[in-house]
Amino acid sequence: MLMRGVVRGSIWSGCIGGLAMAACLFGALPALALDGIVEKKVFEMPSYTTTGGGTIKNVRIGWESYGKLNDAKDNAILITHFFSGNSHAAGKYKADDAAPGYWDSIIGPGKPLDTDKYFIISSDTLVNLSPKDPNVVTTGPASINPDTGKPYGMSFPIVTIQDFVNVQKALVDSLGIKTLQAVMGGSMGSLQAFEWGADHPEMVKRVIAAIGGPEADPFLIGWLNLWAAPIKLDPNWNNGDYYGKAEPKAGLAEALKLVTLHARHWKWADAAFGRKWAEDGKDPKAAMGNQYAIEAWLDKAAAGRAAVSDANHFLYLVKANQTFVTGNGASLEDGLAKIKAPVLLIPSADDLVFPPDRNMRPLKERLEKQGNVVEYTESITSTLGHLDGVVNIGKAGDTIAQFLAK
Amino acid sequence: MLMRGVVRGSIWSGCIGGLAMAACLFGALPALALDGIVEKKVFEMPSYTTTGGGTIKNVRIGWESYGKLNDAKDNAILITHFFSGNSHAAGKYKADDAAPGYWDSIIGPGKPLDTDKYFIISSDTLVNLSPKDPNVVTTGPASINPDTGKPYGMSFPIVTIQDFVNVQKALVDSLGIKTLQAVMGGSMGSLQAFEWGADHPEMVKRVIAAIGGPEADPFLIGWLNLWAAPIKLDPNWNNGDYYGKAEPKAGLAEALKLVTLHARHWKWADAAFGRKWAEDGKDPKAAMGNQYAIEAWLDKAAAGRAAVSDANHFLYLVKANQTFVTGNGASLEDGLAKIKAPVLLIPSADDLVFPPDRNMRPLKERLEKQGNVVEYTESITSTLGHLDGVVNIGKAGDTIAQFLAK
Repeated sequence: MLMRGVVRGSIWSGCIGGLAMAACLFGALPALALDGIVEKKVFEMPSYTTTGGGTIKNVRIGWESYGKLNDAKDNAILITHFFSGNSHAAGKYKADDAAPGYWDSIIGPGKPLDTDKYFIISSDTLVNLSPKDPNVVTTGPASINPDTGKPYGMSFPIVTIQDFVNVQKALVDSLGIKTLQAVMGGSMGSLQAFEWGADHPEMVKRVIAAIGGPEADPFLIGWLNLWAAPIKLDPNWNNGDYYGKAEPKAGLAEALKLVTLHARHWKWADAAFGRKWAEDGKDPKAAMGNQYAIEAWLDKAAAGRAAVSDANHFLYLVKANQTFVTGNGASLEDGLAKIKAPVLLIPSADDLVFPPDRNMRPLKERLEKQGNVVEYTESITSTLGHLDGVVNIGKAGDTIAQFLAK
Repeated sequence: MLMRGVVRGSIWSGCIGGLAMAACLFGALPALALDGIVEKKVFEMPSYTTTGGGTIKNVRIGWESYGKLNDAKDNAILITHFFSGNSHAAGKYKADDAAPGYWDSIIGPGKPLDTDKYFIISSDTLVNLSPKDPNVVTTGPASINPDTGKPYGMSFPIVTIQDFVNVQKALVDSLGIKTLQAVMGGSMGSLQAFEWGADHPEMVKRVIAAIGGPEADPFLIGWLNLWAAPIKLDPNWNNGDYYGKAEPKAGLAEALKLVTLHARHWKWADAAFGRKWAEDGKDPKAAMGNQYAIEAWLDKAAAGRAAVSDANHFLYLVKANQTFVTGNGASLEDGLAKIKAPVLLIPSADDLVFPPDRNMRPLKERLEKQGNVVEYTESITSTLGHLDGVVNIGKAGDTIAQFLAK
């Protein structure tokens, strides 16, 4: 089903291989019709040169769109995704999907990102965490290196958040779009939004950043190291050479448990589990293997995510996040100075990954000091910590709508 | 050098095998003389039955004391240690030791825990993390099971915080002490202090608890699971059967990195490292193995700690902490109701392990509501997060002194 474009930056608006055939049934519908049915499309580049000078051939990135691009091609908004996310930001592929895209609460007809008005683009990143997810299209260590016919593994070039943005820029260019009404992202998506603002100030009218920061702060650099550690401990990781062999599922699952817990909060743990045991009659005091409910839940949640994820992609994402400073240079001040657009900051007060005291609160002051228009709201704060920026983004809906209307 | 007592609860005030011979030179000095020289002593129990019904023979626990027990034997204060700590709370073993015990800033002549007035006892716990530390004496999975002549490994009985307290109680009883002016501990030490208050209300005149809580909250239960995970991923762990073979050093080191980082704060990371590279000329963007300074520091700090620690002891400590509820029953309310003593709570406002919003702030209200006298201070808060409770305890010195004087 899937044809490859051969021109740099070509687009093929197709379905995802044989993995999600059902989605193809809706291929003829306009994206995000009234029933919210969306399709995955694929953007291809025959070759991409990374900011570090590496070459990646046959770059393929999945993307979705909601709403219609107007004739002036000036009503587009780009959505950039978080560490463990993908381009499925809104709508459903099939009417009976269990859930819509992650920000469906703010994307759609009459919603803050109003698809009656805006053309919303959402794209997968390079080295997306979940290359085995049938709804993800990405290029990374698990991809076949055309020069060898084998997966890249750890020979894949190091990529940065700026590389993610560069590939998105090529996608947006290929659509003839010269103006973005906004670039909006949460967590790692916010890093991309800041980078877009710094790299393309003439193009980006607004930056909307949720639960993130303008750089990886040193404490986060340390945490990212720890997120990655279980993968490297798993003997199946084998320095990244595991394709076609037993994969490091156990290490990847423990890494994903760390991400999952770090992105939440004690308020969530109290409400969801308390000190409940995993199984009636199996007192955690009675045997080392007897667990509390939260432990069993973490194991199960992580195993599910590990099944569609790739361990090397995880390590490359860690590196991309650790090395992030807005502007991709040495100086955060210089990078931020390149951002000319108004900026809307949406932190969760309880965020343990990007604590607002370290990130968005001082960022607000820095941006105002350099002359940017800055809006700021912590209205998404609920009980989920960092994850409030995904699940509870709707609480900032009015603020987002007003910011877009200005 | 080391003789074994054969009577239950006997004491032998000796030196630590052949591992710290120098300390024996000072064996004749009174504990914590004016020059702050202390000696490690060993408390032994021929047999101890755990709260879960397990039997541990030949229990040996290290302890230290500072100051002199008065004739009435009513001037004692017990110090209980944190997860990765031990009984070395004050003074030095040798005049040229690099550093004194961890709470030396508040223990000594004229200090808040005034050794001119009080007899301060500090004891190692069961399953202490660091059985290879020459200054630790403990009994746990790495100890020889007298029935088999081999290390217990994972056949060691599960132990609880209440078991730690029961062994300390036997030590205190053996000294003829019937009254403790206070039990004071930080982090896991605070759990023991609460347990002492609940189990022995007739004996404990005051509870002083720093950077802790009255139970392991569900979020902490999850984190403790994650702390333990790297050990189990290390193939050398081998279900705990590694004594005399290659030990799971890599997994233990990653576990200790998690403890180390979780116990600190972004303020510390900013001040100590910023985004500095580990090595000049080795840009972390240039190679997957090139690190930031904080990563290299974590690796080095953890490797040092792993060298004296035991992986199975780590797992048993995790279990003891996860299962903790004051009173060792199902109900926190019932456990707290047993505490009759005045309580001094000393959290760090930035504590990520025992966040005060979840732990000591609501605990203050609960204790006051049930009629306890409660003092509360966050004066230790600096830049270290949880670790402020160890490093900066001196900032609460006046409050501690006043609380003891009441």
